[in-house]
Amino acid sequence: MFFDLVIIGGGPAALTAGIYAARKKLKTLILAKQVGGQTLLAENIENFPGFEKISGKEIIEKMRLQNEKYGVEIKEGEKIESIKKKEESFLINSIEARSIILATGKNPRHLNVPGEKEFAGRGVSFCSTCDAPLFDKKEVAVIGGGNSGLAAALDLVKYASKVYILEFMPKITGDEWIVEELKKTGRVEFITDVEIRKIKGKKFVESIIYNDKELAVEGIFISIGWIPATEFLKDFIELNKEGEIIVDPKTNETSIKGVFGAGDVTDIKYKQCVIAAAEGAKAALSVYNYLTSS
Amino acid sequence: MFFDLVIIGGGPAALTAGIYAARKKLKTLILAKQVGGQTLLAENIENFPGFEKISGKEIIEKMRLQNEKYGVEIKEGEKIESIKKKEESFLINSIEARSIILATGKNPRHLNVPGEKEFAGRGVSFCSTCDAPLFDKKEVAVIGGGNSGLAAALDLVKYASKVYILEFMPKITGDEWIVEELKKTGRVEFITDVEIRKIKGKKFVESIIYNDKELAVEGIFISIGWIPATEFLKDFIELNKEGEIIVDPKTNETSIKGVFGAGDVTDIKYKQCVIAAAEGAKAALSVYNYLTSS
Repeated sequence: MFFDLVIIGGGPAALTAGIYAARKKLKTLILAKQVGGQTLLAENIENFPGFEKISGKEIIEKMRLQNEKYGVEIKEGEKIESIKKKEESFLINSIEARSIILATGKNPRHLNVPGEKEFAGRGVSFCSTCDAPLFDKKEVAVIGGGNSGLAAALDLVKYASKVYILEFMPKITGDEWIVEELKKTGRVEFITDVEIRKIKGKKFVESIIYNDKELAVEGIFISIGWIPATEFLKDFIELNKEGEIIVDPKTNETSIKGVFGAGDVTDIKYKQCVIAAAEGAKAALSVYNYLTSS
Repeated sequence: MFFDLVIIGGGPAALTAGIYAARKKLKTLILAKQVGGQTLLAENIENFPGFEKISGKEIIEKMRLQNEKYGVEIKEGEKIESIKKKEESFLINSIEARSIILATGKNPRHLNVPGEKEFAGRGVSFCSTCDAPLFDKKEVAVIGGGNSGLAAALDLVKYASKVYILEFMPKITGDEWIVEELKKTGRVEFITDVEIRKIKGKKFVESIIYNDKELAVEGIFISIGWIPATEFLKDFIELNKEGEIIVDPKTNETSIKGVFGAGDVTDIKYKQCVIAAAEGAKAALSVYNYLTSS
């Protein structure tokens, strides 16, 4: 198989790159572990221009259809075993391509405290969209007071009787707008300067220990950030100390000619759905320039 | 009137900045000559992720509603007479603001040949979306073979009996995908290496002179690029030689602290609707950081 462009990743950056590349008539393949990525976790996206409110699943489905309309091939469930530079092209597993866009996004960061692993799926969750309904009329904690923690709390407060938000910093860092929405419910409590020690329970989560306190909760939603999905790229391309792909912010070029980066996996400052999408568009336009000028 | 943020402009960059700023609870005013700007000229947008096909008017209307939902004030028809830096704020006409986002976009470039001005509105047009239906069963010329010219031709071929595309370069520079669509109709002719000399007619356009040839057409659509709307900013902020606002591509900062730029008016490389929107989001997030850290 030989492509003009292989896009690795399946989120808004990858899918928008696909649309732009295919409209430029590039023979394009999207290689995704799962189409959608982190966007699938979003119950409601309300800050994507053009949509007052849309679920992550819905917007991804729309983008997938746009790709299919223009003939982009999509291969899901593909693990990247190897990625190599050849003379005039690249080899990704056994697929040859004249150019690559890396848009693999990022994965949730872990607390690394006792109980986190044992109780995963038994009270500990990284996905409020998936698991919030399981905690109907129960008390839960969200770890992390950034926007993703607040968004998780908004998901949860629809079901849970009480939501604690535990933040290790001295103040909540997410949008005031969401903080106020949460306060209005009267069922959300904000706790700052928190150090998580342990997650306790028997078969399921029963409590969380922070500082010198024990809080009885049945659900714990961990929203403390993300790790860029670049493990497989370490020996291939230049990364920053956070493991993000270093890109030229104007052209999305990486340290390797013919390889471009897009979206949350790169060292862009703001990680937002519409920004990732735009980065995908930029990367695809740069691929087009690269292929037509070389 | 005192605002946290005044956004000058009314296109996707301005409107997305509004959404992001208001969700951060910034008291925000959008000052726009006209909400929508150049996007209103787009009959069909097909490369904005999430929308298989949407008109410029529709997507702008959706973005406007999102702004209203979050309480952004919008003032239309406002001409910027003066913009000044005060000690801790800025004065735009008589409106005071702690920060500014400049998102004024760009305006169409003119041919500057005899007849262009006289026949404006009498056969000469800069807006195929507005005027294509006037040329039903007539022959027309599009000046410019870039994407905006090709898009104009696509609009026109629905009505006109014949569309000539006149390009001054030796080849058509727009998307192959659109070129093929146009060729399929059998009613589009591409002419390259063209130098436009004159537009002729009596009351209305009757022909166009290029090189040493005369082409009989009743409509002429000029699509040869855009000029950034920065005339009023010349003595205020640093511009590049194209007149675009120079911004830090990561943070959208300009040469003046507290003033940010977003979208097509800036020196970003690719001018696309989704990219402008993302630039607006970035600028608003940088404003928020600036205001909360200062």
